[in-house]
Amino acid sequence: MSETTALLNIGSLVTNDPALGDGALGIITDAAIVMQDRRVSWVGRSADVDPTTTVIDLEGRAVLPGFVDSHAHLMFAGDRADEFAARMSGEAYAAGGIRRTVTATRAATDEHLAANLRRLAAELRRSGVTTFETKSGYGLTTIDEARALGIARSVTDETTYLGAHVVPAEFEGRPDDYVALVAGDMLDSCAPNAKWIDVFCDRGAFDVDQARTVLLAGIAAGLAPRLHANQLQHGGGVQLAVELDAASADHCTHLDDRDIEALAASNTVATLLPGAEFSTRSPYPDARRLLDAGATIALATDCNPGSSYTTSMSLMIALAVREMHMTPDEAVWSATRGGAKALRRSDIGRLSPGSRADILSLNAPSHIHLAYRPGVDLIDRVWQSPLTPKVAA
Amino acid sequence: MSETTALLNIGSLVTNDPALGDGALGIITDAAIVMQDRRVSWVGRSADVDPTTTVIDLEGRAVLPGFVDSHAHLMFAGDRADEFAARMSGEAYAAGGIRRTVTATRAATDEHLAANLRRLAAELRRSGVTTFETKSGYGLTTIDEARALGIARSVTDETTYLGAHVVPAEFEGRPDDYVALVAGDMLDSCAPNAKWIDVFCDRGAFDVDQARTVLLAGIAAGLAPRLHANQLQHGGGVQLAVELDAASADHCTHLDDRDIEALAASNTVATLLPGAEFSTRSPYPDARRLLDAGATIALATDCNPGSSYTTSMSLMIALAVREMHMTPDEAVWSATRGGAKALRRSDIGRLSPGSRADILSLNAPSHIHLAYRPGVDLIDRVWQSPLTPKVAA
Repeated sequence: MSETTALLNIGSLVTNDPALGDGALGIITDAAIVMQDRRVSWVGRSADVDPTTTVIDLEGRAVLPGFVDSHAHLMFAGDRADEFAARMSGEAYAAGGIRRTVTATRAATDEHLAANLRRLAAELRRSGVTTFETKSGYGLTTIDEARALGIARSVTDETTYLGAHVVPAEFEGRPDDYVALVAGDMLDSCAPNAKWIDVFCDRGAFDVDQARTVLLAGIAAGLAPRLHANQLQHGGGVQLAVELDAASADHCTHLDDRDIEALAASNTVATLLPGAEFSTRSPYPDARRLLDAGATIALATDCNPGSSYTTSMSLMIALAVREMHMTPDEAVWSATRGGAKALRRSDIGRLSPGSRADILSLNAPSHIHLAYRPGVDLIDRVWQSPLTPKVAA
Repeated sequence: MSETTALLNIGSLVTNDPALGDGALGIITDAAIVMQDRRVSWVGRSADVDPTTTVIDLEGRAVLPGFVDSHAHLMFAGDRADEFAARMSGEAYAAGGIRRTVTATRAATDEHLAANLRRLAAELRRSGVTTFETKSGYGLTTIDEARALGIARSVTDETTYLGAHVVPAEFEGRPDDYVALVAGDMLDSCAPNAKWIDVFCDRGAFDVDQARTVLLAGIAAGLAPRLHANQLQHGGGVQLAVELDAASADHCTHLDDRDIEALAASNTVATLLPGAEFSTRSPYPDARRLLDAGATIALATDCNPGSSYTTSMSLMIALAVREMHMTPDEAVWSATRGGAKALRRSDIGRLSPGSRADILSLNAPSHIHLAYRPGVDLIDRVWQSPLTPKVAA
């Protein structure tokens, strides 16, 4: 016998399935969800639920799919609060600060890295995230990158090999040698615990040719590509992401018309990370141009100790509305279904029969309150399914 | 026998007393606090604490005075999420929206208003606020204003009579009649449960002459003045606040050189409310000009259902740093000691012998993390003294 649980008296339910309710979010009012075997088995009006199941009364609260944070960097040690404070007093953000975290991460024990990861995973869950991606990228040796992914694999299905985060100090002046390592021995050691391969393709990190070399090697090793693109300046990252059918081009702060057209015509999601613009005091990406062109947007935290040390998807939604002129509906969709698309997942980011029972209830009558009540912890309760076995991407 | 408790192993303690530690925040590292009879009896190095007292080990966490939220509007019913969403799609913010909340508030029962107040007071406490001010201003009849203050008085010492919030619909075209009521019978009914008197002096609300009439009547009735000034446009509000030695001029979004000079030369605190600029997508006040001129700044939430429905002082600090170019130290000071000064209180907003034991510990090693980790709930534990009897201001 499997357990069946019904959530009743949901004031406003975001299904993200337009066939089930109103608008793009498929909203059902006075709704209910039935869960069985950690999957959604039924959604509809509260009055229509089979009364024999176990019931939880949500007393009019809003319910939505758990947030999907499709871009985070949680495998690190140390913090950079001093660098943040200096930047707020006028110093520019540069990719080179990553090396400070590399030094701290290499020096940390496995136990320390795992404890820090668990701390941040618990924060994410408390803030309503039921699926998160996380990357290596602060080890930058074969051993350190592989151990980061081994630890990460214990807490999430969505692990990304980011050996090509920056060129480490010991390869200063020899970036091609480092690229060869990343695409060679380091990849061989990391692939077993990774689903994705990623490159920081930007000023101070890797150029388009280097990024292509690394991504193609990863694809050949069975990993699926995603790409940090166009964060610090305009470049060829977005075009490369589309060329390789990457699941996501992340940041997208500096785009031209051709980039926007390419994203709109592709299966590559534009993952916007407003926490990075907030914490580096940079201009925000132009979400409206992307949406109006027909591109798909995901919102994610970019949680990392240098440029966006936040785990709050609620704040990302509020910033998307305030700073990027997304509607509350668009922002909530991008933080749930958009994140799922950026991970090429159809089982999360929606609440309809067959989807995972990853569910979030709010101490608020509507999902709009996530933007309307900025900074307030509205998370009431989080239901999260167990991890699934690794599936080839 | 009175209870004595020591908080030990504080990684970084903000005392806000430069005589006790480093810099304007008077920071002591490896610190301890001893509390007796809900007051601070001792602060210093953790190693120097009398070992016979009850101890709580804070394991390196940062500690600071509880936040002082010196500007909130918590006596209301209903919400305006729809108006927020419309505004984010381009509609302008106008003071007239207040009337919608007036209608909902008048229709609400005492029990409903009290429950809504308790909900928000609990939110404030969870977000680290140990003293908050709250205002009437959504009743706008003698009976409704008086009942709001009677209910508010049960949860805070810092109650403000704001009969002059907007001209209610039934006085449309007769603002002077309404001002006479606010400064007459309504004041008589409200004064017993109020410490402060306030006016919304701005476009769409009350002009400087009307504001002066109301404030002078309040002062004659034993209340102390504070003033909503210069939020929506430049006007004479700040000059009036300084003229009357108001404890605070609130908002200060549109200031000229003369206003800044007047504030800097006065005992009137400039209370900045970045939540309102965030949620109305308006330009932020120029905190740097105020600080550089020598003015005193408080940060507060402005929590209200129209223009700033937040209870998060942590977000106010992050916005002050990101958007108003305050340093993390300045922002934390303004959210604690600055708020206390805006309420003319010397017993809160600092942690030194004799102050109230209103104390906040963070799940972070430093107060800088309040800005460095935006949107993250860092509040570990809150110690809050009971309310004190009403003291004439």
